[in-house]
Amino acid sequence: MMSQYLSDIEIARNASLKPIQEVAHAIGLSEESLEVYGKYKAKLSHETIDELASKEDGKLILVTSINPTPAGEGKSTVTVGLGDAFKQLGKNVVIALREPSLGPVMGIKGGACGGGYAQVVPMEDINLHFTGDLHAISAANNTLASLIDNHIQQGNTLEIDPRKILWKRAVDINDRALRNVIIGLGGKANGVPREEHFEITAASEMMAIFCLSKDLEDLKQRISKIVVAYNIHDEPVTVKDLGVEGALTVLLKDAIKPNLVQTLEHTPAIVHGGPFANIAHGCNSIIATRTALKLADYVVTEAGFGADLGAEKFLDIKCQVGGIEPSAVVIVATIRALKMHGGVAKKELSLNNPEALRKGFANLRKHVETIKQYQLPFVISLNHFVGDHEEEINEFIRLCESENMPFAMTKVWEKGGQGGVELAHQLLSVIHQAEEEEKVNFQPIYSLSDSIEEKLTKICENVYGANGVELSTQAKKQLKKIEEAGWSNFPVCIAKTQYSLSDDPSKLGRPEDFTISIRELKPLVGAGFVVAYAGQMLTMPGLPKKPAALNIDIDENGYVKGLF
Amino acid sequence: MMSQYLSDIEIARNASLKPIQEVAHAIGLSEESLEVYGKYKAKLSHETIDELASKEDGKLILVTSINPTPAGEGKSTVTVGLGDAFKQLGKNVVIALREPSLGPVMGIKGGACGGGYAQVVPMEDINLHFTGDLHAISAANNTLASLIDNHIQQGNTLEIDPRKILWKRAVDINDRALRNVIIGLGGKANGVPREEHFEITAASEMMAIFCLSKDLEDLKQRISKIVVAYNIHDEPVTVKDLGVEGALTVLLKDAIKPNLVQTLEHTPAIVHGGPFANIAHGCNSIIATRTALKLADYVVTEAGFGADLGAEKFLDIKCQVGGIEPSAVVIVATIRALKMHGGVAKKELSLNNPEALRKGFANLRKHVETIKQYQLPFVISLNHFVGDHEEEINEFIRLCESENMPFAMTKVWEKGGQGGVELAHQLLSVIHQAEEEEKVNFQPIYSLSDSIEEKLTKICENVYGANGVELSTQAKKQLKKIEEAGWSNFPVCIAKTQYSLSDDPSKLGRPEDFTISIRELKPLVGAGFVVAYAGQMLTMPGLPKKPAALNIDIDENGYVKGLF
Repeated sequence: MMSQYLSDIEIARNASLKPIQEVAHAIGLSEESLEVYGKYKAKLSHETIDELASKEDGKLILVTSINPTPAGEGKSTVTVGLGDAFKQLGKNVVIALREPSLGPVMGIKGGACGGGYAQVVPMEDINLHFTGDLHAISAANNTLASLIDNHIQQGNTLEIDPRKILWKRAVDINDRALRNVIIGLGGKANGVPREEHFEITAASEMMAIFCLSKDLEDLKQRISKIVVAYNIHDEPVTVKDLGVEGALTVLLKDAIKPNLVQTLEHTPAIVHGGPFANIAHGCNSIIATRTALKLADYVVTEAGFGADLGAEKFLDIKCQVGGIEPSAVVIVATIRALKMHGGVAKKELSLNNPEALRKGFANLRKHVETIKQYQLPFVISLNHFVGDHEEEINEFIRLCESENMPFAMTKVWEKGGQGGVELAHQLLSVIHQAEEEEKVNFQPIYSLSDSIEEKLTKICENVYGANGVELSTQAKKQLKKIEEAGWSNFPVCIAKTQYSLSDDPSKLGRPEDFTISIRELKPLVGAGFVVAYAGQMLTMPGLPKKPAALNIDIDENGYVKGLF
Repeated sequence: MMSQYLSDIEIARNASLKPIQEVAHAIGLSEESLEVYGKYKAKLSHETIDELASKEDGKLILVTSINPTPAGEGKSTVTVGLGDAFKQLGKNVVIALREPSLGPVMGIKGGACGGGYAQVVPMEDINLHFTGDLHAISAANNTLASLIDNHIQQGNTLEIDPRKILWKRAVDINDRALRNVIIGLGGKANGVPREEHFEITAASEMMAIFCLSKDLEDLKQRISKIVVAYNIHDEPVTVKDLGVEGALTVLLKDAIKPNLVQTLEHTPAIVHGGPFANIAHGCNSIIATRTALKLADYVVTEAGFGADLGAEKFLDIKCQVGGIEPSAVVIVATIRALKMHGGVAKKELSLNNPEALRKGFANLRKHVETIKQYQLPFVISLNHFVGDHEEEINEFIRLCESENMPFAMTKVWEKGGQGGVELAHQLLSVIHQAEEEEKVNFQPIYSLSDSIEEKLTKICENVYGANGVELSTQAKKQLKKIEEAGWSNFPVCIAKTQYSLSDDPSKLGRPEDFTISIRELKPLVGAGFVVAYAGQMLTMPGLPKKPAALNIDIDENGYVKGLF
């Protein structure tokens, strides 16, 4: 974004926020239903959520995008701006977003609050500790880890094999030095030496469980089912066997309540849960989405990365597990990103290049085809950047029109909700049309009763456009174990690069003639899905050479700078 | 405590709390000065604290105790009950406490909220994540650790010697398997292999800094001075050299604001900061204490463990650094604990044994002598337990009277504030008398201008009753380095067992003819003190064979059980 503009944090600081009670009141929530955190944040109590149960659901709009590039797409920004646009049209709307991980905030990029004039606020708080949810998840995660090692140390009556512990410690920090560690050194009083691997909290099974739980009781049930290790007889050892599901649930009892904040235009936003989308299922919590649907006629939500990762998991995992049905999908694209998919290097993106745009459009076309397979109406959001050339924009419009793809230009970064009104109108129109024609017939790509292999094949062929899927020898062995354990009805969560439809991050655009290789299958019994690793995916990011932390500062008056 | 009584969590749950705004209002704080966290917790804003600066300070009463035993002393309970008693006498009073660490809550004991009818509430929240302060401190601590390893990984322009890194990672969990670890394994992309040691957050320098900072600016200054490592030329490398003091301060900007809660009797309590007292300086934050002094005529606060550890550090470190002067000291003792100091085994504590009491009284006598050296008025609190025998109580009274020690019986666990009224009256009387006689002349045991060895000698001889102090060869070498670096004016923080006046935990009562051996001297330049290790002190506790986590549970209505 250009330097004559205010930074996101400057815009956010200049904004006049409404007391969160007022924001809540606008969607029918009384002051008593809130647990307020400061003036501009609140959690919704369990009682409030229970009371909403009998209300009818609003319509859910899922925002996804083309495969991300370093050029930037602005998916969160469009999500926020679209919510504001619905509000400008007089609709009763709630936005439902993920909460940011602290690690990346200190590392390479800002949070996930949108940008420009389409932000959720208070962005400083949301990007830092917010209401403490991620810290609570880390604490539950690491308390369990400590309890496992303590069990072994104190006599190991469950006969846990220290070489077969699945549960990993987690920190909400980018810390590559913790990827591979040895713990328990220093002699008998200091534990049993073993290999350990830390993950970032957003990649942990505890985060996935948190986001897929329907209520506190479901959370406790899922935690109790976690397989933490195998014993020396190769049988699974669960949290229930350790007897600590109650304590771990207690650690999450407040975190599980959804957080209410607002946009710069005072549109209510529920920001809750934040699993990564390349290595986890990548969408906000089921509790948050379901609560939002009870509170509003229109809910705008977002899934991580491109439609191949975030939207697929949203539609196949979250919707099937949570009994959620979207009404329409927005696919965000930018001229710049499509040109990168067409082969243009980042430093040449400012040059007019309709030819590259045409070539890169293939990436968008594939995602449109994918969403059509789910039988959902959609609108493409062409998210306008200041340097876009008119010839390119015209070419984009020509392509959409010639291929009969509904689209709208969005300028929410510059203009807030006003810049998303065209998109909102288009959405209302496609939703209305689908209803008229009785065409809304949401269909996941696979059914939970399909075998694990069928599920993988359907995703790889229908969503990625691959010729097929290949399982490694290891994955085949693991598949047998999964089937024997009776976990075949789990959805699958493919861990894959976000940059390409294929499993090779360098293949931009619309790669063809490729197969997906699944190296490893890992059942997460608490979360209730099987992770399929398509290549080596890091579950713990590192910091860059010049981390964002170097630019973050605070003056004696408490003013923060350097947060994006 | 006996089983016919309600548990602490039952009493706490049955209590009717006042909205925190009402509690604040009673000490002159408007709703605008609060950042509310739920209905019963609030943080006080930086502006509020600034506005209070011109007000006169109230009188500070420090609660300490004899050396702790497994019999229990109830120091926090007396602190809370005494605050309630002052309130019952119509005094304007605020209690200032440490906030509990989560690790011990899941491990071996409850939190630090008092007990029975003398508790701060909401105890569930305070014992779990509270307002997130400890999580923020862990995050700042571990972000710094990751930045150090990242600096080395990315070219190491500061030439940090990976064998001489002082900064340790921290978790707020009892996790012995993290005491000694090797990190950075797995090849070039995953960091530089090196030895690492995790501490519990309460034992970290970041916690000490947090508690000794006077304001946000001081916090940032202290963070910038942290020596994180030595370089290959054996020169110190600081946070300032890494350029990340701003980012780390941003992570603590909300945590540093003091937390306001209430007792069961609605007495305001500021609960903020929580360093351990055996391995750190063991008292709540300077910001909290100074704020409390501005808000009330009487402030009751507590220091960890016995007077040899907590009170010494409170009076010598916190008071000298923060410019704080107490008006009186309470020394808590129980019949049961004194009998243990007199040689009785835990299982025989219920038997009447005035002889053992007489013998164990020597421990109390030493702490009284110590407090007299600080030239502070004091009152002994005989904290009544249900099974105390009348003959023992009479013997205790006889001893106090014959040695001219002011004392009061407290029954705050059973009776709340009413059980502390006698103690409050006694305190008002000794404070009044000292003022009349112009005897209030608080005098730390050492002056900051004393040499490190003089400081150590004065503490060991005058507070512990040792014949002297011996430095190991290693400590002598370290002392030379400390003197060369110009850190001789730092106070010293002796890390010593809490169970004995000596450095041998088995020597109860009043040990004689012993010397203290200092194994290691460690300057904490950010905190601004030198830690002197008297023996091997663990900075990371372990979990017991049957951790408290096994008994903690939550039902489908969100009711928690098993927290103490």
